[in-house]
This record gives sequence, structure tokens and C-alpha cells, in this order.
Amino acid sequence: MPELRKDPIVDRWVIIADNRGKRPQDYALAPQRSSGRLCPFCEGNESETPGEVAAVRDPSSPRNGPGWKVRVVPNKYPAVLPDQGDPVGDGGVAWCDAQPGRGIHEVIIESPRHVTSLTQLSLEEICLVLRIYRQRFRELALRGDVSSTMLFKNMGAAAGASLEHIHSQLIALPTIPTLLAAELNGAAAYHEKWEACIFCDMRSWEQRLPRQVLLTERYTAWCPFASRFAYETWILPNRHASHWESISDEEIVDLASVLKRVLSAVEQAVRPPAYNVVFHSAPLTSPALPHYHWHIEVLPALARAAGFEWGSGYHINPVYPEQAARELRETLQNPHQNEVKAIRQTEAKGERLPMP
Amino acid sequence: MPELRKDPIVDRWVIIADNRGKRPQDYALAPQRSSGRLCPFCEGNESETPGEVAAVRDPSSPRNGPGWKVRVVPNKYPAVLPDQGDPVGDGGVAWCDAQPGRGIHEVIIESPRHVTSLTQLSLEEICLVLRIYRQRFRELALRGDVSSTMLFKNMGAAAGASLEHIHSQLIALPTIPTLLAAELNGAAAYHEKWEACIFCDMRSWEQRLPRQVLLTERYTAWCPFASRFAYETWILPNRHASHWESISDEEIVDLASVLKRVLSAVEQAVRPPAYNVVFHSAPLTSPALPHYHWHIEVLPALARAAGFEWGSGYHINPVYPEQAARELRETLQNPHQNEVKAIRQTEAKGERLPMP
Repeated sequence: MPELRKDPIVDRWVIIADNRGKRPQDYALAPQRSSGRLCPFCEGNESETPGEVAAVRDPSSPRNGPGWKVRVVPNKYPAVLPDQGDPVGDGGVAWCDAQPGRGIHEVIIESPRHVTSLTQLSLEEICLVLRIYRQRFRELALRGDVSSTMLFKNMGAAAGASLEHIHSQLIALPTIPTLLAAELNGAAAYHEKWEACIFCDMRSWEQRLPRQVLLTERYTAWCPFASRFAYETWILPNRHASHWESISDEEIVDLASVLKRVLSAVEQAVRPPAYNVVFHSAPLTSPALPHYHWHIEVLPALARAAGFEWGSGYHINPVYPEQAARELRETLQNPHQNEVKAIRQTEAKGERLPMP
Repeated sequence: MPELRKDPIVDRWVIIADNRGKRPQDYALAPQRSSGRLCPFCEGNESETPGEVAAVRDPSSPRNGPGWKVRVVPNKYPAVLPDQGDPVGDGGVAWCDAQPGRGIHEVIIESPRHVTSLTQLSLEEICLVLRIYRQRFRELALRGDVSSTMLFKNMGAAAGASLEHIHSQLIALPTIPTLLAAELNGAAAYHEKWEACIFCDMRSWEQRLPRQVLLTERYTAWCPFASRFAYETWILPNRHASHWESISDEEIVDLASVLKRVLSAVEQAVRPPAYNVVFHSAPLTSPALPHYHWHIEVLPALARAAGFEWGSGYHINPVYPEQAARELRETLQNPHQNEVKAIRQTEAKGERLPMP
């Protein structure tokens, strides 16, 4: 049964989740499951996953059968579970702080086809994926028993993926994780001092700096000043908004194009492609915040943390962000103007599946 | 040129070190250099590395030639450099805190033979390695321009090693890295409250708990309560000491045996073997501290940080430390009593190489 444990000395939390596998060897870095074997995420194999909690599908298709575009299912090997009793812990030892491993762990299966990257999806398909992300955040916010949601994609074995079929995961917790709490604190301190959102200020500053990767009407992407990883890239909406789930349908179409362009450029720079995509958003339960700004972090997995990083807490990045941004800009695709236009026309006509 | 950069929002430092390679692809996870190719660390290939800064070698052998047992050389692709000017940074942007990437980055080549693990060395050879670690700490402490030293070993490609020939690295910095600072603060707070060293208290507590792996006259090893990684194991001296470099010759012989036994057990549990070994020690420049306790952390690399971990700051560990300790205990070798005895006899007779 999962359990959260805090290190007795430093502010570091661990989720001990033995239900993620009888044998940890199942999670070794290398064994990307080959597409020749039964893929539990392919259309037709719906019985291989737990029953779906949401889907975009043809209204005439049966639940947990074929006929879908995007499917959301509980993770078969969850890191947290909704109903968890008291933790085992150490019972009575002062420094052993343990909490139940309570929460929601879901998998978003992003295509019925056996593709591996968001860049292999059409813009319209990416829009469906982003809409279902938004829908999950909105539904989870209504539950009342979770405070935060981490939405993330592990792409490629080197980035921690165990299945190659395109998917993302979300883990919703009753707590605010350490890093989100640190971001909220840092951003609040800046706001107190300067009466401004640090992300908005960074965005307007980066638009004039060589770390910028892309600038559209609605989004800015850049390699951050203190990038932890080579080719690390952040995507921010130009409009201030603390909550990802406040995104509009219009904004989703543009984000689909920006995300596809950024990921395509990262996949040129990082070969074989391996990266994490992480959505950073204010707590589900908080009101709109003037100091926090939702954003997406793309974190390539070229060289990853080793002894020095785990020992010091410092990262080592072998590529200057200014250099990374230059390389990414050089391989950037054109905006998907025709596709965007086509999606807007279809939307105007209302000729679509029931949409999340 | 290397540069330290701080994230504008959270307390997170990065060393940007573009001299670690023209192309970051050189540092991809997979390409373990095969032993068939020229190995720059093998005896006879000394010219492939920068000139040695220390060595255990036959007094008649030439510096930077064959005839050595352990060699210390500057890292050819250093993360930090001794003489670094002012950082590029962003010049004048308030939130962009940058410092020069100043420091020492050395490689300890731990055998003239092409072996890959400390468990393949004799106890006597491990003693030489530990003695040269101690010597490096003592010499660096005399420099005055560095405050802390991270000593670490990356074993196996999945744990971040780029060369398989047995080696460790040390990075000495003018600053106290984030995690060491957090440990010092946490330990000082505990000491203030309880007038005791938290590590000493943990050690005596763990000796009665199922997380203990090994207990000898001088050392205790256990899987910590909030282990970040499956089979994570810490080794602590029973005698309170804040500085690794205060270890005695006697204590080194016992540590060699404990380290070999623990690493052998970890290599049974983690296949193929991949782990980091990190020495945690008080700042070089601080006096002996009543609240800090040097220790060694063995961090296996089965499943490593991915999107969730990088986004939340939480770790997920699929093996309960209590279960990990039980498995490690079952494969533990006997103490190397005869080898220990033989080394003590040789030492008593003084029949050895000039020793560090």
C-alpha cells in the first residue's frame, strides 16, 4: 500500500509505492516494451487496462471498446490510491513522518494508433488531448479530496517511459508537492516586492533575449536562464493565468500548434528523442492567483542526474541555454496556419464528436 | 566556460558547463564505451588523461607512466575550473543570479586493470582507494579556495557513467551545495532541540529496526526510512565524526570490508548493476561539528527521476525500505576477517608502498 514518507533531516518526500510492481526490475531503464508484443494501449485491447474514467469516442461506440480518440484510465500500477488507511510508518519515532499514499493516478492514452510522439498526431488530435487534460483538471477540482495535479508525459525509455504507445499521466494529491510549493512561495515573494508576476516579467524580458525559441500571439517559448537540462524549454501563455484549466478552446488550438513545433525542434536536438513534459499549474483548490502563471516545461533526457546531482542538489547542464535556443530556432517548423484555420472552421460549424 | 546560475523563482542552482563536450549527444545514456576500444584509464594509456595530481605507485615508476595502483587526474571535461572570471549571466537583470563556475573537478582511477566495480577489487586495493579519497580531502582543505567536496561514483550506464573502467570523481566548490546546506540546517535544528546528533540517534534506533542491513564494531548500514530509490543504503561510522577525512587507518580497513559487502549485496539486487555512491561530509573549512555525521549513500539506479519527480520534487520508490533491507541481508557476504587480518599484519610490518 502506498505511503508518503519524509526524510528526517531535509524537506524531502518520497512516495513508497510497492504496488507499482512486485519486482522493481520491471521498471529498469532499458526494457521499452516492443510494439510487436501486445500493447495494452492500442485500440482493440481496451480490456488490458482498467475501465475508462473519460474518453473522446464515437457516441455509438461501447464504453471500454474500440471507437475512441483519447482514453483516460486509472493507472494499473498506481503510485497513490483514493482510499488509503493510516500509514505503517514507524509508530512513535519522532523523526519518522509518514502519511497515507492517498490520491488519484490516471493514464491518458492519446491515440488509438501505436504512435510514440505528440509530433506524430495531427493538430486536431492534439487539440483533443489538450481538451481532455483540461477536463480532467476541472473534474478533479470538483472532488474536494485533492489539492494539486501533476500532469506529465515521459517520452522515450531514457526519460522513464515503460510503454512506448503515446500517453501521459496525472497524479492528483491532497498535498502541494515540494517544488510547486517552492514555486508558489518564490513567485509570491517577487509579487510582494515588485507588484508583478515574475513569469509575466520573465516572459516580456525573454522576448528580447537570445534564449527565446518562439513567440506567437498567445504563447512564448524560451530556454530558461538556469536550464537544468540541455535544450530545456518552457512554454508560457502571454495572457496571465494561474490555472491551466482556465484555458479557452481558442487558446487550445494555438497551444497545440506551439507544442507540436517546440517538441519537433526538441526531437531534432535530442536523438533518440527522450524528454519529459510537465504542466505546472496553481493548486486546484486555490482561487486565481495574481503571482502564479501556469506553464509547460519540456525537459530533455540527454544526461540525467547522477552521483553529483543526487549528492549536491545542483544540476550540471552541458549546453548554454542561449546556444540551445539558437539550435531549436533553426529547426523550428512554420506555424500550422492552414490546419489551425481548418479546425476553427469545423468548430464554427459544430461538426464534431462530443467534445470534452 | 562554466558558470553557476540560480533559478529566478526557486532555490535551484545549475552549473552550465559547455566544456563538458562540444556535443551533448556524447553524454547520452546508452553509449557505454566498450572495453574493446582504447580505454583512457587502463595502465599504459596514461597519456590519454591530463597529468596526475596524486597517485599510489611504485617509487621507481615514472610519473604519468605505468606502475601505479590508484591515480588521480583532473577531469578532462570539467564541470568547474580553478581560474574562472566573471560569469556571462544577463548583466543587470535583477533575477538572473550568476557566479563563476570555479572549483576543482578530479577523477580517481581506482585500478590499473579494466575492472568495473569496487567489488572486483581486493580489500587491500579498496583500502588504497579510500586512503587516496582521504588524502584528496585533506589536501583540498588546505587550499583555502574551496569549501566543500562532493565525492561520488557513477557505476553503470543507467547511473550516469560514461566510462566503465572503475573510477570516482570529486567536485570541490567554493560554495556549500543546496543539499549539503539543507542537511547541515536540518541536523543543527535537531541538535538544538534534542542536544544530540540526529545521525547518531538514527543509527542507534535503526540497529533495532528491520531496515538494518549490517552492523559491525565500527559501522552500521541500513535502508533509510524515506529511501528515494529501491535498495538505497546508507553506511555510517558508529563513532561520531562530521568529517570523512578524520577517518583513521584502522577504520579504513573495516570500511573497505563493509563497503564491499554492501555493494556486493546491492549488485545482487540491482541487475545489471547501476548505482551512485556519494560521500556526505561536513564542509572542508568547518571545525568538527557536534550535529553532523559523515556517511556514504549508495543510490541504486533502477527507476530514476522522470516527469513526476522533476515536476513535483517528490520521489517514487517501488520497494519498501524494510523489504529492501531484508533482501540485502539475505545476500550479504561474510566479513572479510582473514583479509582484514592480513592487511593489519602487513601494516604492522611496514612492508608497503608509500601510502597516502
